[in-house]
Amino acid sequence: MMKLYDFPQAPNPRRVKIFAEEKQIALELVNCDMASREHKSPEFLKKNPSGKIPVLELEDGRCISESIPICRYLESLEPEPNLFGEDAFETSFIESRNRHIELELWTQIGTSWVNGPIVGAMGLFKQIPAAKEASDNNVNSYYKRLDNEFSSSEYVAGNRYTVADITLLSAIDFASSMVELKPHESLKNLHRWHNQILSRPSSSI
Amino acid sequence: MMKLYDFPQAPNPRRVKIFAEEKQIALELVNCDMASREHKSPEFLKKNPSGKIPVLELEDGRCISESIPICRYLESLEPEPNLFGEDAFETSFIESRNRHIELELWTQIGTSWVNGPIVGAMGLFKQIPAAKEASDNNVNSYYKRLDNEFSSSEYVAGNRYTVADITLLSAIDFASSMVELKPHESLKNLHRWHNQILSRPSSSI
Repeated sequence: MMKLYDFPQAPNPRRVKIFAEEKQIALELVNCDMASREHKSPEFLKKNPSGKIPVLELEDGRCISESIPICRYLESLEPEPNLFGEDAFETSFIESRNRHIELELWTQIGTSWVNGPIVGAMGLFKQIPAAKEASDNNVNSYYKRLDNEFSSSEYVAGNRYTVADITLLSAIDFASSMVELKPHESLKNLHRWHNQILSRPSSSI
Repeated sequence: MMKLYDFPQAPNPRRVKIFAEEKQIALELVNCDMASREHKSPEFLKKNPSGKIPVLELEDGRCISESIPICRYLESLEPEPNLFGEDAFETSFIESRNRHIELELWTQIGTSWVNGPIVGAMGLFKQIPAAKEASDNNVNSYYKRLDNEFSSSEYVAGNRYTVADITLLSAIDFASSMVELKPHESLKNLHRWHNQILSRPSSSI
């Protein structure tokens, strides 16, 4: 069985676990203890030189890092239900939507996280309060943009559930629970989408 | 003919133009005048709600945003030479390498850029000098990591030229020319790779 290097509270391994659940692909979860910096150990860096999880280890020992390439690989093994696109245009459209969420929302949540109290208490990085203030604002602005988009679009990439919804779900749940950046209750369309996604069994992961 | 919304000095449209040149795909270049904020105009936001270039407009008017989805679409039209991967594993490996460059190097170059003198003079963003200091350091650390990797790997993703090399080329050329973050001359392996890529005709774009 393929192994997934995982850590319970980490949002990116969650993306792969949700994706695998949607595909009904079984993965052996291997705990990578981020609290003791196991993901930065020389042994782990052989699996992923970036020192991050998730990592998928195939049965022959080859490794794939980064959640999206892992999910794309899983889609090649189990094409249905399709979550990356049915044809070349839809595949590009879903990827562009996914990248907007990653590059414009996830990066800002990440900046707020590393400059927030939990990471601050670890003493690993020099805190930059002005950077957190800017990224907090960017996250809230992006939530408003999403709320507007969900007034005319049922899912992140059009009218069906795709990998881009998993990316946004993991972002919002992490921001809400760990970074104190929960979408304001006035953003009705965004909450409609969120509740709709939360009703899927895979979202309980 | 498909249209590519472009701006001469912008690094991300350059990625698509290099990719198209490698594929010998002709694109009609349409100037999107970033200097006058045309990329943030209501008309352009219909093409890409993120207000960024590049955007590829197909002959039927549909648009694709983000350089990597655009390149992936072009690969579907013209599969050779293969730049995204020959099989599922190589495709995932190339994507993970490309993402490392984008998420760990490009994001840091971007932070140094928006907090640097050129963008600062535009007065669009509140400058955060501490953020630039941190991202400058991260860029130089990443260059050292790349130098080490290029001691045993000819290209970014193994032993052949791929889309991930285009991503790194555009990053280093932009950082060197516009952000004063040129790789130190002691990083011989990184410079060997850079000179090797620069010798390709497409790199003159």
